[in-house]
Amino acid sequence: MLKLYGFAASNYFNMVKMALLEKGVPFETVPFHGCQNPDILAISPRGKVPVLETEQGFLSETDAILDFIEETQPGISLLPQSPFERAGVRAMAKEIELYIELPARVCYVEVFFGGRPTPEALKAKSERDLIKGFAALKHRARFAPYVAGEQFTLADLYFLYSVDLAADVGKRLFNVDFLGDMPGAKALLERLADNPNVQKVAADRLAEAPAFLQRVGAVGRATA
Amino acid sequence: MLKLYGFAASNYFNMVKMALLEKGVPFETVPFHGCQNPDILAISPRGKVPVLETEQGFLSETDAILDFIEETQPGISLLPQSPFERAGVRAMAKEIELYIELPARVCYVEVFFGGRPTPEALKAKSERDLIKGFAALKHRARFAPYVAGEQFTLADLYFLYSVDLAADVGKRLFNVDFLGDMPGAKALLERLADNPNVQKVAADRLAEAPAFLQRVGAVGRATA
Repeated sequence: MLKLYGFAASNYFNMVKMALLEKGVPFETVPFHGCQNPDILAISPRGKVPVLETEQGFLSETDAILDFIEETQPGISLLPQSPFERAGVRAMAKEIELYIELPARVCYVEVFFGGRPTPEALKAKSERDLIKGFAALKHRARFAPYVAGEQFTLADLYFLYSVDLAADVGKRLFNVDFLGDMPGAKALLERLADNPNVQKVAADRLAEAPAFLQRVGAVGRATA
Repeated sequence: MLKLYGFAASNYFNMVKMALLEKGVPFETVPFHGCQNPDILAISPRGKVPVLETEQGFLSETDAILDFIEETQPGISLLPQSPFERAGVRAMAKEIELYIELPARVCYVEVFFGGRPTPEALKAKSERDLIKGFAALKHRARFAPYVAGEQFTLADLYFLYSVDLAADVGKRLFNVDFLGDMPGAKALLERLADNPNVQKVAADRLAEAPAFLQRVGAVGRATA
């Protein structure tokens, strides 16, 4: 059986978990926290979450894992059939990751964990990048009702577990409502919140939150 | 015929160009510089290079383009057959992009274009990220002789057009030789330099360099 390594507060872990749940693929989860310790790096070369353990070995990097699941597992497909449309979905997923998730991530410690403030130069770059990233999403996404059209795809996984966090960063750090002029995005977040698998992932996250925050606080104190 | 939009100094443009050349796929190039102008954003939602024009429309984001080419074009395959090995190649390509190319890119203006210095906080983050990124490459890459093994793959495209630039950033900005303890990486760069298609891409880049530097300088003056 596939084993998914990670923790319930990780948005990338939740992208893969949600893909497996939507496909109805059986899997176990294994608690795993990324860092630079040798035993972690032996499984995940950059010390990142998630990792998928397969019969052939370990896989890291969320989109490589999602492609592997797509190519090997039964259940609904999270990519369209046509190569051109597949590439469009991949491009949207990538744009959400590179231009929304990663710039917002720079500010997560300050915004979500009460950690030390993000250095001003990093914060300024994050805001510039997020403005362009959300503009690209608005330009590109169809929200009909899903990001790429009528089908729930890989792009919706990136949307679901990146855009809400990045919008929170916008509101709390930059006083900008990035979704203010994107009613389709808000409607999609509401629609996805009704999905039982999304609810399961959210419930698991909530249940693990106290332990996670304690861990983040302990790591913060240890490295301060 | 496929049309590849971009410019010869763009390393991402060159990844796609090299893939098409290695596969022997006929294509035209169209001069195209990324920015936030509406006519550019109509083709590339985040204003980035490269873009591929197909019979069905425009595609952006390098890895989505590379997947499209892989799925639709004849010639040698740049991914292994086995889904597990394919995922391994994708993960290595992604690790090079996220943890080597993107952190190094923050310093490109200072290092390669003589532009204004990178803010210290960004520079410090770049160095921290590059140290971990190159450690991951060392841990993961096989260099046998290619990044993922005996076959030239998508991971080699990312390696070829990211690692040399990032190593230059390391030497010139951080006084670190990131490839110093990675003889396999150096040997692969030398091997790839003998490839006629790599030489063609390099010659095109060199021929376009004066115009590119003039353009970068002009843009720098306009936005200073």
